[in-house]
Amino acid sequence: MSHSRTVEIEGHIIDSGTMQRCFGAVMDLGGSFDVEQFDVGTHEEAESYCRMAVSADDPETLQAILHELHQNGAVLEDPTDVELVAAPADKVVPPDFYSTTNHPTEVLYDGEWIEVERIEMDCALIVDPEGPDGTPRAYTKVLNAVEEGDLVATDQSGIRVKPPERPRHGGGAFGFMQGGVSSERPSESTIREVAEELREVAEDGGNVMVVAGPAVIHSGAGDALAELVEAGYVDSLSAGNGFATHDLERSLYGTSLGMDVETLEHPRKGHKHHIWTISEIIRAGGIEAAVEDGIVTEGVMYQCVRNDVDTVLAGSIRDDGPLPDTITDAVEAQDAIREQAHDADIVLMLATLLHSVAVGNCLPSTTKTVCVDINPATVTQLLDRGSAQAVGMVTDIGTFVPTLAEFVLEGEEENLAADADDTHSHAHGE
Amino acid sequence: MSHSRTVEIEGHIIDSGTMQRCFGAVMDLGGSFDVEQFDVGTHEEAESYCRMAVSADDPETLQAILHELHQNGAVLEDPTDVELVAAPADKVVPPDFYSTTNHPTEVLYDGEWIEVERIEMDCALIVDPEGPDGTPRAYTKVLNAVEEGDLVATDQSGIRVKPPERPRHGGGAFGFMQGGVSSERPSESTIREVAEELREVAEDGGNVMVVAGPAVIHSGAGDALAELVEAGYVDSLSAGNGFATHDLERSLYGTSLGMDVETLEHPRKGHKHHIWTISEIIRAGGIEAAVEDGIVTEGVMYQCVRNDVDTVLAGSIRDDGPLPDTITDAVEAQDAIREQAHDADIVLMLATLLHSVAVGNCLPSTTKTVCVDINPATVTQLLDRGSAQAVGMVTDIGTFVPTLAEFVLEGEEENLAADADDTHSHAHGE
Amino acid sequence: MSHSRTVEIEGHIIDSGTMQRCFGAVMDLGGSFDVEQFDVGTHEEAESYCRMAVSADDPETLQAILHELHQNGAVLEDPTDVELVAAPADKVVPPDFYSTTNHPTEVLYDGEWIEVERIEMDCALIVDPEGPDGTPRAYTKVLNAVEEGDLVATDQSGIRVKPPERPRHGGGAFGFMQGGVSSERPSESTIREVAEELREVAEDGGNVMVVAGPAVIHSGAGDALAELVEAGYVDSLSAGNGFATHDLERSLYGTSLGMDVETLEHPRKGHKHHIWTISEIIRAGGIEAAVEDGIVTEGVMYQCVRNDVDTVLAGSIRDDGPLPDTITDAVEAQDAIREQAHDADIVLMLATLLHSVAVGNCLPSTTKTVCVDINPATVTQLLDRGSAQAVGMVTDIGTFVPTLAEFVLEGEEENLAADADDTHSHAHGE
Amino acid sequence: MSHSRTVEIEGHIIDSGTMQRCFGAVMDLGGSFDVEQFDVGTHEEAESYCRMAVSADDPETLQAILHELHQNGAVLEDPTDVELVAAPADKVVPPDFYSTTNHPTEVLYDGEWIEVERIEMDCALIVDPEGPDGTPRAYTKVLNAVEEGDLVATDQSGIRVKPPERPRHGGGAFGFMQGGVSSERPSESTIREVAEELREVAEDGGNVMVVAGPAVIHSGAGDALAELVEAGYVDSLSAGNGFATHDLERSLYGTSLGMDVETLEHPRKGHKHHIWTISEIIRAGGIEAAVEDGIVTEGVMYQCVRNDVDTVLAGSIRDDGPLPDTITDAVEAQDAIREQAHDADIVLMLATLLHSVAVGNCLPSTTKTVCVDINPATVTQLLDRGSAQAVGMVTDIGTFVPTLAEFVLEGEEENLAADADDTHSHAHGE
Repeated sequence: MSHSRTVEIEGHIIDSGTMQRCFGAVMDLGGSFDVEQFDVGTHEEAESYCRMAVSADDPETLQAILHELHQNGAVLEDPTDVELVAAPADKVVPPDFYSTTNHPTEVLYDGEWIEVERIEMDCALIVDPEGPDGTPRAYTKVLNAVEEGDLVATDQSGIRVKPPERPRHGGGAFGFMQGGVSSERPSESTIREVAEELREVAEDGGNVMVVAGPAVIHSGAGDALAELVEAGYVDSLSAGNGFATHDLERSLYGTSLGMDVETLEHPRKGHKHHIWTISEIIRAGGIEAAVEDGIVTEGVMYQCVRNDVDTVLAGSIRDDGPLPDTITDAVEAQDAIREQAHDADIVLMLATLLHSVAVGNCLPSTTKTVCVDINPATVTQLLDRGSAQAVGMVTDIGTFVPTLAEFVLEGEEENLAADADDTHSHAHGE
Repeated sequence: MSHSRTVEIEGHIIDSGTMQRCFGAVMDLGGSFDVEQFDVGTHEEAESYCRMAVSADDPETLQAILHELHQNGAVLEDPTDVELVAAPADKVVPPDFYSTTNHPTEVLYDGEWIEVERIEMDCALIVDPEGPDGTPRAYTKVLNAVEEGDLVATDQSGIRVKPPERPRHGGGAFGFMQGGVSSERPSESTIREVAEELREVAEDGGNVMVVAGPAVIHSGAGDALAELVEAGYVDSLSAGNGFATHDLERSLYGTSLGMDVETLEHPRKGHKHHIWTISEIIRAGGIEAAVEDGIVTEGVMYQCVRNDVDTVLAGSIRDDGPLPDTITDAVEAQDAIREQAHDADIVLMLATLLHSVAVGNCLPSTTKTVCVDINPATVTQLLDRGSAQAVGMVTDIGTFVPTLAEFVLEGEEENLAADADDTHSHAHGE
Repeated sequence: MSHSRTVEIEGHIIDSGTMQRCFGAVMDLGGSFDVEQFDVGTHEEAESYCRMAVSADDPETLQAILHELHQNGAVLEDPTDVELVAAPADKVVPPDFYSTTNHPTEVLYDGEWIEVERIEMDCALIVDPEGPDGTPRAYTKVLNAVEEGDLVATDQSGIRVKPPERPRHGGGAFGFMQGGVSSERPSESTIREVAEELREVAEDGGNVMVVAGPAVIHSGAGDALAELVEAGYVDSLSAGNGFATHDLERSLYGTSLGMDVETLEHPRKGHKHHIWTISEIIRAGGIEAAVEDGIVTEGVMYQCVRNDVDTVLAGSIRDDGPLPDTITDAVEAQDAIREQAHDADIVLMLATLLHSVAVGNCLPSTTKTVCVDINPATVTQLLDRGSAQAVGMVTDIGTFVPTLAEFVLEGEEENLAADADDTHSHAHGE
Repeated sequence: MSHSRTVEIEGHIIDSGTMQRCFGAVMDLGGSFDVEQFDVGTHEEAESYCRMAVSADDPETLQAILHELHQNGAVLEDPTDVELVAAPADKVVPPDFYSTTNHPTEVLYDGEWIEVERIEMDCALIVDPEGPDGTPRAYTKVLNAVEEGDLVATDQSGIRVKPPERPRHGGGAFGFMQGGVSSERPSESTIREVAEELREVAEDGGNVMVVAGPAVIHSGAGDALAELVEAGYVDSLSAGNGFATHDLERSLYGTSLGMDVETLEHPRKGHKHHIWTISEIIRAGGIEAAVEDGIVTEGVMYQCVRNDVDTVLAGSIRDDGPLPDTITDAVEAQDAIREQAHDADIVLMLATLLHSVAVGNCLPSTTKTVCVDINPATVTQLLDRGSAQAVGMVTDIGTFVPTLAEFVLEGEEENLAADADDTHSHAHGE
């Protein structure tokens, strides 16, 4: 094995699984390793350090191994400045451009490690030698946003990533890198944990993002979500044309897809309500106008308008209508979702695969996520995308949201009682 | 088409789909029909009547068509006495024996139509010319219960079945022959309907049977089910060794499969609790003894013992232990389940396919059933088995049971308030 | 019940379930009916006729009942010309506009029944009093295509629909209105039936549309689909950015999402292939250019370019890139899909819910559809959308497509052998 | 933290994840660790060694931590002889008895480490001081097999387990401890890998066990499985009454649950075939008698009888009949399955959760398993049970088995061609 490089890895690299993945990658790809130094943290707060030489028969294999080690946080023993190549045209990146992970990342530029802003996976990494304040700046750009002349990173040697580490003291419901999803966890206890987390984020002034599919409304959970919005627990809502239409139909006709959500009666009567709702909102000139005109008087969309929730309705090819508020261009919608996602401290993904994947694509691995769906495959797919602090639940959204709202709001009352002397009484939003 | 017979069909045969199925069967099987008379009920309470000649090219096809029509309630224009052949040996039925449906059935014996008792599908139909009181009697027997000399029906000509008809005035949550299962119904409203039905049956002195899988306990719903038992809403419980063990583990160690169902803490500690629980119950001599000895002090099994609920624990090849109370022989267990099923007025099937199918096999098509599972395929399979009054829910058992218990018990309180003057205060069982 | 109207229904209305649904609708909605005449077709080729008065307590209920009966093919005894109202503005329809079903439909205009063109559900129905040739013409328009001044139908009284009827002689794999989906059908026999249907449509010069999700490529079925395209069995392909990218990645790097589909080896090596593929195609200027430049040399997209298959790549918010060929605007993409769907005689929906629903929304109920997915809920949802000739299979797309291609192409060889004397040897495309 | 013990761990403990799990367990359970020595294997063949002191605030927590470390292969620095307590009665074990894992295990008895025979999880560990040959012997017993006086292990201090380690050189389709199941793997390539593994085991004279559910027959895969049996690739078959009945029905009537598996025709005709099949086999006196009498002439059961395949039909409460060959007692059936499982070198679990779990319960973690089901939750549940060499596929059993048989048998033909000069021509069993 004539081709060889030496890398260093440090941190909680044993109990976070980093070393297991690094050794595994070398073996899987047909290389070999020689551990030159390994200092094991002797107690739980102490970090470990590993320096090892990695070898392979040919430079391509070595490169593949180094790429894999890089993604797990390994750094070349002798890192050099990041290599930058100017983009030859708009939307065109140089060959072999560096494609980002969703982990915190730094680039070595001019001998200094700079933090990469707006981290998100599968992006180009751009370095601006003279940022707004005259100092070098690094950030990500999705392919279609790359402009001619952007300086694009093309090699990993001057880049280091920080994969998530196992939290030192538990993680509550938010398991560390939990690949699997079990429907064998106690449902109400898990929802209570999510409620506590949600209240904690809100109390700390954090940003709560809700991603919601139409099933939230069909399943009768709209009122509970509207309550959470009204109580100030939702900062941004990312949904689609279908979600909004079903919610608005409830306000206009008392039905969702034609069924009375309370009485379950006369489902047949309402066949046309769905398309009529869209037509009424078009006539009014949009959702906000319909709220202002008193046409829409309740529901999630109503509360979002009333509470200035940052709302993005992204279009899709299966939409009826669509509503005037729906962003029909996918790239434009993605950009709007990206802004929401970058601001979020916790994301609740409620019964929608399409929108949850779209949001997940924009999230750094450090954002907390809660993924709820009745279909285990959906929850697994969402958890696999790599947040280090994710909780997945295979449950019925129609009972999940009401139970969550109950736990969140009853917690608020307890707080109110406890904080009777305090000057600020609201859990969130100040 | 030289082979032909004439049949009669009557009842609400259009809106119950009977005529659609009958015409369809003739066409599917390659026969032809000639409608000789068709009197349509002119309003919703009026029954319809059809007499038609059915023809086929060969006697086998005609027989197959007549068999299909028979199962949909058609009767030969000129029925003759049922044909009976003595069983040649124990467990051995005559060739071409009549295999029952799960619909109400009558046999023509000695010129009179007799109701078949203990109706259940895929059974032999036995006629006892001199029943206990000296008059002819007809009943079903599963194959392995047939005894040498039993008079077994071998042809359908003297037999008529009564398939379920569409109820005249709605059916609430219990849809008529609803093949499909949607997860797009409002969850809490549907649960409220089930709760009302349950309370109604209980108030009428009816028999409530619960079939429960281990997920009821894992998912944290055990306390809610125990409450329903304690409040008198459960007359019989059909479950397995796993359900009972998980429930007992909670009482003994506070865990289910090692996880604390309340705090979700320290799942690792309890690896051995499951097998230790079985060992403790064996040591005590059984569940009832363990309750009496104060070893088991809470949970579903505890409440079943305390409230004299008719409990059957059926064994399976995946059982650990098993507990001394578990019936390990499948035939013996089936017989015990059969007795429960025949007594039931409403059956709640909670998160178990195996036990639900076993119970469903023994039910006549007239028993109300509620099928709840997180897996849509399970719910579909259970609904397909042919109860005419079934409601299926694809939901999380861990939120379903607590919500159901809340709705049932809050309903009871309302009743209590309303019935303050009444002498009998208990909702059920008197 | 003081409000009443008389309707007529005719056709194979018993065995198609029409009468069952009509009687059911009246009862469900709280009305009553009085059958004035009912002539039953006495044999399988004879149609039936029903005239009945329908009554309700209030005009709204009567209207709801009549709406439901209308959708099942009932016509008022005394139909009047369709009511038309001019659209007040672009994309704005009159209140209470008529929303179409997906069944063949006619409007009574100027005393004559005119066939509605481009039938599709949830659309406005427009009448152009002077069509291209000076005679009245009727057609559908989706809401956002409505232009100020369009004459929009607003009442159902002058409109009649023709719901699908049960085929007289079997339907092969394409069951009539089969709501349920069973995974208990023999897989290979069912695929053989689909193959025969596909070859039949192709031989008759019919149009075959394929809707494909990315799983077709991940699962290794890309080669088989490419073979079907090459052999001329695919007229149009409707897919997304992901499908195309995965397919192109295979041609460029031999991997799909980084895994070598043949050897299953070194999945780690190819993390970046996905995003690099998009970048390469952007650099080339699009898929067709990449094929012409010899960059892409195999796969489904390659064969589509080479065989002039009408291809639509519709964008979505979860897309990476996207490829330059991807239509990112949902309304524009829908319009392109609509053209494909209206031309199709048979549609194969392969492992994609999003694109299948989008296509299904545009299909009349008379188009044959084959829905294949590993998730039973997806297949059920697609079958529920109302094609009268649909076959659903819960199976693995990775074995389905290769088996289908084998059956289709081996059938072709048999034909070739049989047609050795014929002048035209190709099964399709002339 | 006043309570402390020192443990040693050695082997490929980093890349197998052992150290990650050990450190994690200490932290999860609230203890602390102090690494006294850690020698890292410097290359892939070199093992590592760790000695660390573990502390906790109270003896119970320390015990829980040690238990967890024990299960991951840690051994106390100063192990003492295993503690043995005589069982007080039949089926009754001492309190705090040691419950086995499914990993290879040794006990320290009389100063020597003895291998535990018949390893299987959740069992009691019995030591017989004077085995058949006069030397000490250790083996497992399920609870209900424990006899009064058996010497049962009650503490883990003299016991060490050997959890599976990551194989040094790949693992083919059989991933190491792969928790997740993806439907995004190429289906046919994966089946080809399973076929190669199967042929390899067979060629090495290994034992192939097949666990099959009724869906194998419904889905039309019966012929392919029968071919594999006939070709000598199946040593034992573990199934249920339903599987056998459906298979026999095909031989007797050409149908499965009444549907002709080839033509898909006349499903209605065969309603009774299922129950008639059982009746015919009862009449014949059992399956073997029915084969000998020429009543059964094809199918899986036929080939099993003809090829002396060790067959166990385990009963369940949902069985019809049952067949005379079905073992109705669950404990007796488990014992029969246990013998099959202990002999197996590779187990194919085909579309049955119940039987697969029963078999999986009896398997040591070193047996290769292949789990195939259309339901991802089933595959996940089976893989979670802890074989270190398992491959899971979410696919259609109706295409899986025929494709597998094709690959296995075509491979055999290739071998035959290659081995034309050899004296033994059969791939298996000599």
